[in-house]
Amino acid sequence: MVSTNGTNGTNGHVVPQIVHRHPLDQLSGDEVKVVRQAVINARKAAILFRNVYTFEPAKAELVKFLNAEHAGTLSAETPRPPRQARAQYDVVYEDGSHEYMESVIDIASENEVSMRKPEKGLQQSLTMDEFQEFSRVCVESDMFKKAVKELNLDAEKFDIAIDPWPYGGPDPGEVTPRYTQGLCFAKLRNENPDTNHYGYPLPIIPVMDTYKQEIIRIDRLATGGVENGLKYGTAKTNVLEHCQPAEYVPELLDTPLRKDLKPLNVLQPEGPSFTVSDDSLIEWQKWRFRVGFTPRECAVIHDVTYDGRSVLYRLSLSEMTVPYGDPRPPFQRKQAFDFGDAGAGRAANNLALGCDCLGVIKYIDAMLVNAEGQPSVSKNVVCIHEQDNGIGWKHTNFRTNRAVVTRNRELVVQFIITLANYEYVFAYKFDQAGGITLETRATGVVSVVNIDPGKVSPYGNVVSPGALAQNHQHIFAVRIDPAIDGQANTVFTEESMPIPMNPETNPFGNGYEVVRKPVTKSTWIQASPFTNLTVKMANTNKINPISQRPVAYKFIPSPSQLLLADPESIMAKRAAFAQHHIWVTKYKDEELFAAGEFTNQSQKEVGGVSDAVARNDDVENDDVVVWNVFGLTHNPRVEDWPVMPVEIHQLELKPADFFERNPALDVPGSKNVSSVEFGRDANGACCKADDTNGTNGHSNGDVQAAPTSHLQGTDTIPVSQVNGQNGH
Amino acid sequence: MVSTNGTNGTNGHVVPQIVHRHPLDQLSGDEVKVVRQAVINARKAAILFRNVYTFEPAKAELVKFLNAEHAGTLSAETPRPPRQARAQYDVVYEDGSHEYMESVIDIASENEVSMRKPEKGLQQSLTMDEFQEFSRVCVESDMFKKAVKELNLDAEKFDIAIDPWPYGGPDPGEVTPRYTQGLCFAKLRNENPDTNHYGYPLPIIPVMDTYKQEIIRIDRLATGGVENGLKYGTAKTNVLEHCQPAEYVPELLDTPLRKDLKPLNVLQPEGPSFTVSDDSLIEWQKWRFRVGFTPRECAVIHDVTYDGRSVLYRLSLSEMTVPYGDPRPPFQRKQAFDFGDAGAGRAANNLALGCDCLGVIKYIDAMLVNAEGQPSVSKNVVCIHEQDNGIGWKHTNFRTNRAVVTRNRELVVQFIITLANYEYVFAYKFDQAGGITLETRATGVVSVVNIDPGKVSPYGNVVSPGALAQNHQHIFAVRIDPAIDGQANTVFTEESMPIPMNPETNPFGNGYEVVRKPVTKSTWIQASPFTNLTVKMANTNKINPISQRPVAYKFIPSPSQLLLADPESIMAKRAAFAQHHIWVTKYKDEELFAAGEFTNQSQKEVGGVSDAVARNDDVENDDVVVWNVFGLTHNPRVEDWPVMPVEIHQLELKPADFFERNPALDVPGSKNVSSVEFGRDANGACCKADDTNGTNGHSNGDVQAAPTSHLQGTDTIPVSQVNGQNGH
Repeated sequence: MVSTNGTNGTNGHVVPQIVHRHPLDQLSGDEVKVVRQAVINARKAAILFRNVYTFEPAKAELVKFLNAEHAGTLSAETPRPPRQARAQYDVVYEDGSHEYMESVIDIASENEVSMRKPEKGLQQSLTMDEFQEFSRVCVESDMFKKAVKELNLDAEKFDIAIDPWPYGGPDPGEVTPRYTQGLCFAKLRNENPDTNHYGYPLPIIPVMDTYKQEIIRIDRLATGGVENGLKYGTAKTNVLEHCQPAEYVPELLDTPLRKDLKPLNVLQPEGPSFTVSDDSLIEWQKWRFRVGFTPRECAVIHDVTYDGRSVLYRLSLSEMTVPYGDPRPPFQRKQAFDFGDAGAGRAANNLALGCDCLGVIKYIDAMLVNAEGQPSVSKNVVCIHEQDNGIGWKHTNFRTNRAVVTRNRELVVQFIITLANYEYVFAYKFDQAGGITLETRATGVVSVVNIDPGKVSPYGNVVSPGALAQNHQHIFAVRIDPAIDGQANTVFTEESMPIPMNPETNPFGNGYEVVRKPVTKSTWIQASPFTNLTVKMANTNKINPISQRPVAYKFIPSPSQLLLADPESIMAKRAAFAQHHIWVTKYKDEELFAAGEFTNQSQKEVGGVSDAVARNDDVENDDVVVWNVFGLTHNPRVEDWPVMPVEIHQLELKPADFFERNPALDVPGSKNVSSVEFGRDANGACCKADDTNGTNGHSNGDVQAAPTSHLQGTDTIPVSQVNGQNGH
Repeated sequence: MVSTNGTNGTNGHVVPQIVHRHPLDQLSGDEVKVVRQAVINARKAAILFRNVYTFEPAKAELVKFLNAEHAGTLSAETPRPPRQARAQYDVVYEDGSHEYMESVIDIASENEVSMRKPEKGLQQSLTMDEFQEFSRVCVESDMFKKAVKELNLDAEKFDIAIDPWPYGGPDPGEVTPRYTQGLCFAKLRNENPDTNHYGYPLPIIPVMDTYKQEIIRIDRLATGGVENGLKYGTAKTNVLEHCQPAEYVPELLDTPLRKDLKPLNVLQPEGPSFTVSDDSLIEWQKWRFRVGFTPRECAVIHDVTYDGRSVLYRLSLSEMTVPYGDPRPPFQRKQAFDFGDAGAGRAANNLALGCDCLGVIKYIDAMLVNAEGQPSVSKNVVCIHEQDNGIGWKHTNFRTNRAVVTRNRELVVQFIITLANYEYVFAYKFDQAGGITLETRATGVVSVVNIDPGKVSPYGNVVSPGALAQNHQHIFAVRIDPAIDGQANTVFTEESMPIPMNPETNPFGNGYEVVRKPVTKSTWIQASPFTNLTVKMANTNKINPISQRPVAYKFIPSPSQLLLADPESIMAKRAAFAQHHIWVTKYKDEELFAAGEFTNQSQKEVGGVSDAVARNDDVENDDVVVWNVFGLTHNPRVEDWPVMPVEIHQLELKPADFFERNPALDVPGSKNVSSVEFGRDANGACCKADDTNGTNGHSNGDVQAAPTSHLQGTDTIPVSQVNGQNGH
């Protein structure tokens, strides 16, 4: 934050007493109020607010500002991008119809700068309020009441819990207004509001016309097994008799908690190694970056530098689609886009000290809005902390047995989102060797549907009696906007290829070659693990003086299975991004979302990476963006019930000839004084230091000493001795 | 350890006062001495001892014993496998010739039980002593002296350091006695014994006849660049003038260490959660297993059970080959088998408290022998400790905003090996959700050769002036001997396959199928990431009552690039194991090594997995062994110099319908009391508990409160209300 204090500026003018928020900072509550009023003034109509958030400046403008910031030449006179906000909202007309619009509001002037109305029929993500309406509308619906009555549930035993879901992809040719569907479960009336209803799935899905607020259809769900194929199965009533509780809150578990897990505490007696300034600026171990926030992406990493050198312009989770592989209608509509349909920022958990991460933790709050456009702060949605990730590098000199070993300290920017039954933990991890790892952990409750007693299904696994966890995929898209020593970058692929044995170039057959190819036009690339395909984001204008190769960052795209849906299916068409592992596109302002802005009820991907690639842009030595798609085909195990252990994926960005040596070489290899040898007094610091300091590793077994490794003790030879000279 | 105390046994006999060591325990020093004497007595000749270690009983015998142990019915009368040792040694005849032999010695009787002489020409791994001889023999060699003199090194500035290496694979048709080769470097005479010589590679490789102790050849090394192809390049002398120091020990660094890294301490105030008994028995969080040790494999995991149920009989690192991809002779002979040529147990580091791992640490010493067969204890070669690995599982009830979250505590059995320039960190990690992860970290100094000034090479990357780090691969083999609820197991492959859209089985195109196939005959299998190929080790005799599928453990084989060497090359033939990701073989006693027992100077793989598969054994519902091969194609970066940041790989074994729910469900989700919020007093426990306990996540932004997620607040509906009944 640049704050001028009313004294004379360098040019003699009296600088006004204003506070410039950083262009990447979240809006303040006052700024949200300005936006709200500006929208109301502009539209002069009833407004349903969806999102209000900082409008990132055009890159051309922002880069100039950031360059000045990095150069330390920022002053009140530095031209800075105007502070603006994006408002997303519906205008609600008197006949109840809605029209979705997006405005950019200039904060200083309190004016609308621009407004756009997307093509009619495109649906924005769901809001809280729409979800909250769902239960009310169901209760008032005769259609819904009738369907429930047919199930003949025990009213003494159960309540009904409805999880609103996005409608998924409409069927081919189906023209849909805004719809919401609801997955229905019975919930034990056991007085504990946290009893888990997912063990009691009901075989109905009510569909609501969102704006008309009426249930327009009840989809009946098949409950059959492998012998029933796509048909319904036998169950029409008594569908819950074979079901069982699926409790996970400790007070409802049928077993006591483990008592033999002793505390493992992380202490940072001198505090953390990172600093936070300007609200959003994080500095840690030569890294410097800003943490932004949007309602759709949650934490976004901006303007990443290492030791003053630019690495990334922007790094974000861009999209995720979760298609279910059960072909029985209407399960084809179980395909969520968790960023585009719901919004990771709005679904983010409020994190708890000592539970979601350990050590000294910085929390960041999120500024959201409610339907009236009023600011609403969600506390602690992003946490920042350090963690130890084992050994960072080590070498033992076998001649002296001296080991130099450093720990692998990481800085973690983490958030966790809940989407009805399911959770994701996302973490951007920075390390001391110049690496950035984007980690995803999938957890939460797998989505289940009712299955008849005793049956099994080809479409999933029975994880609890009566509960079929359907096979599904999670396909993620990460957007990497590199700035490797500047904005003009080139993407290369590198593959390691065999060379047939031949006398001229490979006489013994051990040789192989590394084939490097620049990406010249926007394109997609498939992962290719058996050629070790590596993607390098390089700056060909800057050559590493040691290797004589362009400075670069690289990653190996995970060869995940991609979308299994038939390419002609709606599910595949609306997630074109999910059909290739890498997309290389030319940078374009506001092009942030792999499946396009409007995923909710989409029939095809519009404005996503497939459209961006189709522009056939030149991307060599240009402002290029790289999108990495990876996934998890999740055919559930019983062990995933009732809450699944984390499934972890990591995308590792690593410097490749960016530095002139291991950047972690200067990490001190200090000994951790709090470690204790098993069986020793916990207070006895260094109780065995003499035995374990790596210089005296061997003791006399029973008889005589021997060196540590089979190599130790090999001596060096003075050159003079070999040369036959007489000393020096 | 079963210890009887001399009182009456159950049958009235006076039981002798003896101590039974567990069949899987390492030898004691006294036992080693018994073995040594028995070998000397049997051979009546000069003996060069290589290895002496516990001879694991035949599985048929050991399983009976382990079953009694598990059943708690062990007594002094329980039949137990005889305590035996394997001795590996050379008989050294008076003419100086060696003959390699292996004996099994019965400890109680002090007698040789069996002896075998492998086919002549097969070479056992290298010993310490052989390595130590290398420098002495070089200094005494006129051939070596002449070669060094030609290099015209500055005797004031440099010593010579020679890293002995295995000879690699001989050339086609080459008949070799036992050879050792040496990679030569100059070492700065800077008084610090830990100055790093790898920055000064010399372009010669002396080759020693190991038994004759004479240098038989000096291989000259090409130093050219891309323009020289396989030819030598220009450098004959002054080969070091453009080289630079490659220091990594802190006192020799040209930059100060970072000063802004604050301590991050792990404290376990109540001690660890694991117990150690019997020397080798580890119990932790329902896991129970034994840690064995062999000179070749280092730590071996035996007899793994979870909550009393058998999971694995034995888990080990079996082999690793590191072929270099530089086709210029003699670099085809840079192909180490780090387990078979060197021995992970003998190359294991003596670990240091607070450096190699944090927290409360149990160390295990290794019993080795020297060339005379005398016991020699290597201290702290294996460490056992707990660590936190982030979130284990989490679910937030969006209706109440209550989060239940558990940490992912792991028990780690770790060892680190040094092979001249290079290090590997190996860890067996057990988690609370029934998973076992085998983690490898590659670190240390990449292998470099001299390159002329200003040149670059297609065969590697210049990581320091004059130092070309050659492209290479690391290919690992893990041996998994499953015992999923018993020894009779079946391996299945599962692939997730698309179904073309069709009205009968996939009307909307979203459906996919999971194709399961049992492995009936011993075979290899290729990883297949794009079909999500999963390997399941199942017990078809035991069906999970919930899913109705066989209990199993599964893993997804990493689709690593496999050996790039031409299949007809010696490098490929001696590492047949490295050509497929999965090998499924029928269990056979002592068949432990993927590339066979004798890898040193081998021309082809003998007795490895390729031979085992060729037996074409029935493996369905049988005692089956699964071998997983994965690798790392390492084309070095400048950042890998002078010591490379860890490259991490993980193989994850997970239960799949083995349990009847998430086995970590009973892990307490307790709050870590030592965590502190950034900017708060470090002593202020729970300073923000009210804000952060997950039940009060939202505050009034500037204006009014809103719930956490867009979902919170959706109510449940009494069935009676929907049914139109009048309450209950």
